[in-house]
Amino acid sequence: MKRINWNALDEAARNDALARPAQARAEELRRGVERIIAEVCANGDAALRELSARYDRCSLDAIEVGEAEFAAAEAKLAPELKAAIREAAARIEAFHRAAAPQPVGVNTAVGVRVERILRPINRVGLYVPAGSAPLPSTALMLGVPARIAGCREVVLCSPARADGTCDEAVLFAARSVGVHRVFKLGGAQAIAAMAYGTESVPRCDKLFGPGNSWVTEAKLQVSADPNGAAIDMPAGPSEVLVIADALANPAFVAADLLSQAEHGPDSQVVLVSPSAALLDEVAAEVDCQCAQLPRGAIAQQALEQSRLIEVESLAQAVEVSNRYAPEHLILQVSGARELVASIDSAGSVFVGAWTPESVGDYCSGSNHVLPTYGYARSYSGVSVASYLKQITVQELDPNGLRAIGPCTATLAAAEQLEAHRRAVTLRLAALGISL
Amino acid sequence: MKRINWNALDEAARNDALARPAQARAEELRRGVERIIAEVCANGDAALRELSARYDRCSLDAIEVGEAEFAAAEAKLAPELKAAIREAAARIEAFHRAAAPQPVGVNTAVGVRVERILRPINRVGLYVPAGSAPLPSTALMLGVPARIAGCREVVLCSPARADGTCDEAVLFAARSVGVHRVFKLGGAQAIAAMAYGTESVPRCDKLFGPGNSWVTEAKLQVSADPNGAAIDMPAGPSEVLVIADALANPAFVAADLLSQAEHGPDSQVVLVSPSAALLDEVAAEVDCQCAQLPRGAIAQQALEQSRLIEVESLAQAVEVSNRYAPEHLILQVSGARELVASIDSAGSVFVGAWTPESVGDYCSGSNHVLPTYGYARSYSGVSVASYLKQITVQELDPNGLRAIGPCTATLAAAEQLEAHRRAVTLRLAALGISL
Ligand SMILES: [Zn+2]
Ligand SMILES: [Zn+2]
Repeated sequence: MKRINWNALDEAARNDALARPAQARAEELRRGVERIIAEVCANGDAALRELSARYDRCSLDAIEVGEAEFAAAEAKLAPELKAAIREAAARIEAFHRAAAPQPVGVNTAVGVRVERILRPINRVGLYVPAGSAPLPSTALMLGVPARIAGCREVVLCSPARADGTCDEAVLFAARSVGVHRVFKLGGAQAIAAMAYGTESVPRCDKLFGPGNSWVTEAKLQVSADPNGAAIDMPAGPSEVLVIADALANPAFVAADLLSQAEHGPDSQVVLVSPSAALLDEVAAEVDCQCAQLPRGAIAQQALEQSRLIEVESLAQAVEVSNRYAPEHLILQVSGARELVASIDSAGSVFVGAWTPESVGDYCSGSNHVLPTYGYARSYSGVSVASYLKQITVQELDPNGLRAIGPCTATLAAAEQLEAHRRAVTLRLAALGISL
Repeated sequence: MKRINWNALDEAARNDALARPAQARAEELRRGVERIIAEVCANGDAALRELSARYDRCSLDAIEVGEAEFAAAEAKLAPELKAAIREAAARIEAFHRAAAPQPVGVNTAVGVRVERILRPINRVGLYVPAGSAPLPSTALMLGVPARIAGCREVVLCSPARADGTCDEAVLFAARSVGVHRVFKLGGAQAIAAMAYGTESVPRCDKLFGPGNSWVTEAKLQVSADPNGAAIDMPAGPSEVLVIADALANPAFVAADLLSQAEHGPDSQVVLVSPSAALLDEVAAEVDCQCAQLPRGAIAQQALEQSRLIEVESLAQAVEVSNRYAPEHLILQVSGARELVASIDSAGSVFVGAWTPESVGDYCSGSNHVLPTYGYARSYSGVSVASYLKQITVQELDPNGLRAIGPCTATLAAAEQLEAHRRAVTLRLAALGISL
């Protein structure tokens, strides 16, 4: 872990200290994804079978998961895991329902009613990766808000295993949150299938979910195509920033850094503290705990790029965090709650010693699909709003047109849009008013 | 105007009837914009001056509008226009404030607090085009929600006129809604300046506003670059779909179609009606009213591509509209309000005979920056939410960890993320609990 003294750095060095690894859209990746999308558009299901054989080394009987496979998955799963999936889904639902947008209506003048109504996006496509391990939690995080929003058709793609089946926990999670159809597809071909449709896979209006660089590039490409699909947000490697003070428990802090590090070798891990002693203690704890982890080698790679940043105060720690805009921000300080008011960019915040980041990954109720790579400066995590369209509605009665017609006519004239003006004056004339 | 009988068409012909003109990202446009962005990144303000001279034929003294120019603009403007701008801003503010997202907090289990807090996007960049005429209304539509959101720095770019000054109404509108800084820049170079920053123009986190194909392409390019900026939404030509019944006033309907048509030769205009007689009457009225318009030649070009679609019922008219997903939807039918419930994709809806589309362009209170080109299937118009980040916050006390720790541990184990599991079990052990 790199040790950095923030106050010994000039501006350029501070930028370097917080820089993420470059995510250049390598030309090769870009062209490879373009080719996959073109193949899926041209050859539909046949291309999906061929690409799955080539990239995922699996030969698919059926592309879609059928009733028998769902039933077998449910039968095979441990009762304890099924209960945990249901329990997590219930809390995710409770929070997302409470935070869902509501319709609004006001009168902005006598006779002028203006409303915002909400409509689900009709067809949504969810992507659940299965890189080093299957991720049933991601099926919950994407499926629950889609169900609350009321999307008419919720489609989910997740890569098949070599034997052509899908992970049982992912299937059970998808079913238990009301996903309508599941397809055994991964990578850029899954994104292409949902964006453009094939014989089997319905064309979706918006795509959601994390993925590797192929998936991310495919999402970027289909979202830039007017005939493609919208996407939830751009993506980069997962990351955590922990702010800890001298009183923090080094073992807790180390455990949180390691949960981030084990996600992958490109995970970003940052610890910021005004206490040099705490930084030392955590570094020692990390080494000790890391040695005991099955994914220790992966974590070790991530830790080599990680940073321990010494600052002069908690206020400066918050400055560093706001500048970095982390996906996950953990506050392990006394009086953590007071610090929240000064946080201005982060995906999700974990307050106090008893709130490890892993509760947010699974079942506190918040969403774990969050903006990474500094996107937290301008993007938000997935929520029910991500699955809704907000439509404005206005209705004027004759009094309303009397009230705001003249203002409309004046502005239309200033913008030299005479037909806009006449659409008002014509109606006012019908009410016996001339402007 | 093309007359179409919906029930005489097969599926392919129906698709054709509702197709928008292709918006291929011409290779030439793409490369031209790439060059402009590269010039601005390399040469900053010097590039902006040179590009403004080359493309906007104006030589800029100062790139930024100074106090003297704001004061001169205010002094020169007609009192009636200033009053209309203030009046419109007040109603836009009233609606946007009512529809702004609110913080939320719930307990999802004993000792588990989950909240959503809101933070403004720090720096936002607004683009106000000035193609055929200046658009002070767009400055209001973009500036009011930025102010309500509390963005720390609100930057606005609008092209200068040949004499190097900006339109007075745009300057006055920008000032009256609290825009902090205005730059005399247009086109792709304005977008590049706000996305990457120059000596004069601050780098912005998110860019908003309509524009021509150069602006649109530049917004697409900077939003695909992790070092660029987020954008409000993709864009295409403006459009209206009117549903009218036999009792609608043909003169009102024609006036609304013409207000859309006068926006530009690529404007999309669609009228759907179960009444063949109404379609005939409107067609005649359009010809008659168009002849009297100063922008009649532009409107005429748009009308050549426009469509009069005869359907068998209002229910089928709504089907057609939902399939098209118009930016503006006008309901000129008796019982218009009842139809709203069945609308599932549109940017903004105008209900009844006394609600011309132009009131929404200016001052009903709703926003006029709306999804076009079918994007209304998955995007929403600009609102206060567009200027905010939603951050989730969770805080567990020891009871909270006791309550949801076991569920977290079970799911982490299923996903083979042992460090995630230990971050929980380590803390539970400190509370005397072993799983
Ligand atoms: Zn995690
Ligand atoms: Zn208009």
